[in-house]
Amino acid sequence: MTRGFYIGRFQPFHNGHLSMVEQIADDVDELVLGIGSADDSHTTRNPFTAGERIMMITKSLVGYDLVTYAVPIEDLERNSVWVSHVQSMSPDFDIAYSNNPLVIQLFREAGIEIRQSPMFNREVLEGSEVRERMISGGDWESLVPEAVVDVVEEMNGIERIQMVSESDSNTNDS
Amino acid sequence: MTRGFYIGRFQPFHNGHLSMVEQIADDVDELVLGIGSADDSHTTRNPFTAGERIMMITKSLVGYDLVTYAVPIEDLERNSVWVSHVQSMSPDFDIAYSNNPLVIQLFREAGIEIRQSPMFNREVLEGSEVRERMISGGDWESLVPEAVVDVVEEMNGIERIQMVSESDSNTNDS
Amino acid sequence: MTRGFYIGRFQPFHNGHLSMVEQIADDVDELVLGIGSADDSHTTRNPFTAGERIMMITKSLVGYDLVTYAVPIEDLERNSVWVSHVQSMSPDFDIAYSNNPLVIQLFREAGIEIRQSPMFNREVLEGSEVRERMISGGDWESLVPEAVVDVVEEMNGIERIQMVSESDSNTNDS
Amino acid sequence: MTRGFYIGRFQPFHNGHLSMVEQIADDVDELVLGIGSADDSHTTRNPFTAGERIMMITKSLVGYDLVTYAVPIEDLERNSVWVSHVQSMSPDFDIAYSNNPLVIQLFREAGIEIRQSPMFNREVLEGSEVRERMISGGDWESLVPEAVVDVVEEMNGIERIQMVSESDSNTNDS
Amino acid sequence: MTRGFYIGRFQPFHNGHLSMVEQIADDVDELVLGIGSADDSHTTRNPFTAGERIMMITKSLVGYDLVTYAVPIEDLERNSVWVSHVQSMSPDFDIAYSNNPLVIQLFREAGIEIRQSPMFNREVLEGSEVRERMISGGDWESLVPEAVVDVVEEMNGIERIQMVSESDSNTNDS
Amino acid sequence: MTRGFYIGRFQPFHNGHLSMVEQIADDVDELVLGIGSADDSHTTRNPFTAGERIMMITKSLVGYDLVTYAVPIEDLERNSVWVSHVQSMSPDFDIAYSNNPLVIQLFREAGIEIRQSPMFNREVLEGSEVRERMISGGDWESLVPEAVVDVVEEMNGIERIQMVSESDSNTNDS
Repeated sequence: MTRGFYIGRFQPFHNGHLSMVEQIADDVDELVLGIGSADDSHTTRNPFTAGERIMMITKSLVGYDLVTYAVPIEDLERNSVWVSHVQSMSPDFDIAYSNNPLVIQLFREAGIEIRQSPMFNREVLEGSEVRERMISGGDWESLVPEAVVDVVEEMNGIERIQMVSESDSNTNDS
Repeated sequence: MTRGFYIGRFQPFHNGHLSMVEQIADDVDELVLGIGSADDSHTTRNPFTAGERIMMITKSLVGYDLVTYAVPIEDLERNSVWVSHVQSMSPDFDIAYSNNPLVIQLFREAGIEIRQSPMFNREVLEGSEVRERMISGGDWESLVPEAVVDVVEEMNGIERIQMVSESDSNTNDS
Repeated sequence: MTRGFYIGRFQPFHNGHLSMVEQIADDVDELVLGIGSADDSHTTRNPFTAGERIMMITKSLVGYDLVTYAVPIEDLERNSVWVSHVQSMSPDFDIAYSNNPLVIQLFREAGIEIRQSPMFNREVLEGSEVRERMISGGDWESLVPEAVVDVVEEMNGIERIQMVSESDSNTNDS
Repeated sequence: MTRGFYIGRFQPFHNGHLSMVEQIADDVDELVLGIGSADDSHTTRNPFTAGERIMMITKSLVGYDLVTYAVPIEDLERNSVWVSHVQSMSPDFDIAYSNNPLVIQLFREAGIEIRQSPMFNREVLEGSEVRERMISGGDWESLVPEAVVDVVEEMNGIERIQMVSESDSNTNDS
Repeated sequence: MTRGFYIGRFQPFHNGHLSMVEQIADDVDELVLGIGSADDSHTTRNPFTAGERIMMITKSLVGYDLVTYAVPIEDLERNSVWVSHVQSMSPDFDIAYSNNPLVIQLFREAGIEIRQSPMFNREVLEGSEVRERMISGGDWESLVPEAVVDVVEEMNGIERIQMVSESDSNTNDS
Repeated sequence: MTRGFYIGRFQPFHNGHLSMVEQIADDVDELVLGIGSADDSHTTRNPFTAGERIMMITKSLVGYDLVTYAVPIEDLERNSVWVSHVQSMSPDFDIAYSNNPLVIQLFREAGIEIRQSPMFNREVLEGSEVRERMISGGDWESLVPEAVVDVVEEMNGIERIQMVSESDSNTNDS
């Protein structure tokens, strides 16, 4: 049995993420999706809460023949202990997946196998593209799984991201 | 669709927890199991990491006809914001389940429906009973689902809890 | 113009605190009441929030001819920076008042004048006495200013402290 | 009895803030002024400590026929629990006042009435205008209440903001 | 070149610690002394600051032919990342020394060689013995190196520990 | 006996720092080198851990006739308590050395003697120059003491800084 670990912020979970999961599914029997910056929400870069992102991921992967775990990972703001933190929050895994150079370096220094993929660039680009379309009123729906559209609409996510994007302060005070 | 939220430390997930889940399953379509004190581990009271507890819960509930989510909830050490913290980390829920008076009070003040159960007392008692048997070499296996026995053995959990129970210091220094 | 600083948890503000304020009023023109452990609430020892304690203090001192400031002081859990923390949160003060040996030592090491009073012992004793009476249903009302009775009743404080006193866990999980 | 809550950083408290308070005074009997980023100081954006800001506010509002509370609110860096945090630190309030879109969104999601005002834009602009004039040696005194001039001069505030504005590091190390 | 790591709170550094260092000196060329609970001070259990403990250690080891490093290790309150935290704060080491079962378990799980010693029990016992004698006015001087006597006297350490031991509160409020 | 305190991030320790130490050595008998942002690492601005920086400093100063202490100082993110924090972590000192205006202001407000030096500008400039050369593959070796070259090479520091500099995210998630 092989278990993989795939870290992302999933703000929101989109088709690029989905493609990555499909690709990783060829390597592993089970997959942990680590939800990074889990404690951040209500910002332009991180509009959705960890709970909302769990819903997006779980509902999007419901038809897939892959055991998945969606696990919130709060920021510790300390790179030197980040791998240990991830390991304590996640079911044990054999391979990590990321294209982020910092993440790759941290896993390598910890002696954990890490795999990259050309898909990742697409994924990163699509994250901000989706959020920008949400803010400007563009077609974001075509970039995400249908389940994500449902989750975002149910919690009035477009109103939220549009509101917080107007705020130039990140400290909640005028 | 009704979703419930059941908070516990699950150190480890045992038969009392399982009975509770079976009972709650009559009320709800989906159930979030909030793993409290997720950032604590390697102590007599909290021997297992959040990741290990996710495995125990997920493997134990694999045959049940209930959509479940196992979500780590790190301690914030601040009762007044605890309900908001839980809500941000968890998929949205309609009813909370607990027999802990503090938890009940906090949910009530937040205007969230909270249900109690006589099963809870059994559950609390069994938690420390299981850990004491693990430490003293007694029969803990009969008090937990088989999947939990597997998880504990795979990660040498008995050795760990026996070691940390000898430590009278909780600050990692001799 | 002389300003004093009087630190307490004020759980709740009671007649012993009031006597202390009356006594300090002879020394100073203005008085800062620092509300210690401001981030703690919903426990047997700290049942009330900082906001509720501000109300108790302000309403109790409304008829007094003394300029007062009620200032929440969150715990930093680090004695060596505690005086600097207090100084940054409080209007500048000339004299500190306390009978707590640790507080006295910390202010002394920082070179700040600190005064003790025999009233303080009464004050400390009354704090737990009031809370015990609240829990057991005794006469706590006679030990506190009338304004405090109003504040506690308005927020259902007796129900809260009775509930949380039943909870043997301080980690919000059953 | 109606109590309002008005959040700001008040760095420093200026005439725009004062106008807002005067306008809010028509709606409410009592007003809580929540001092945001209370734990920040000695930076260009947040030059003054919470204690210094309490003095500015209290002294500026001394002649007004309005019960006011100046309450420091430390940053929690977690938007999802921010409203609960504010509620625990502040006397209970009925209406919140802000023009900050993030603050408005957070209060709305929490089901709390929030009111905006055209005055807010003036207020925000004046905040940085005042600080820039302090740094460049311009006429900042005409933009703030007289009491604020006194507070700033007494604690050598101009020297402080001019010094820290020269520092391009926010980590206290060269 | 072999470097060892020896963790302790060193409250204060006493003859038992010194014997341990002498014994470890046979194994290694260099020794890191990790000062645990570095952020704690002014309590009965942790009376001295990290800086004061650095002085005690450095002055006590001045005549020894061993390269030593005294490194403060702040508490992270999270056992699962503790080893990574220690590794990031300390020069790289080959062998850890401790008799604390929790520390041993954490290093073992991280795959780091850890050595125990019968000396450790003596060391632990002497720590509280020294502090008790300091509080009660007994002969603590004979249990510590001369350099420690100098450091404690210079900073009025006996007065400090006697004062804080009278305080039954660890939250700085009466 | 005079002891100085010199704060820096030492990312890495370079010839500018060394010149400063040589200059300070004329004033003092002992020197504490406070390693700022000790908890930060694996970023372009702070590539090295505190432990790695202790090694750089200690090895570089081995031939100097000056008692030195290399002390990690973790960020507290609160300017108002920073001086107290530094004082608790460091052996007692008489004079602080810095050219950073914020540091100078904080020490001045605390009543501690602080000295500036024209050398500091060189030092600051060289810090980023060294890191840029490390990233681009330029000649960084000539800007640092030989002992630093050894430390960086031994821990594959160039690979690390080149990897993390590619990462545009500081939150460890793609």
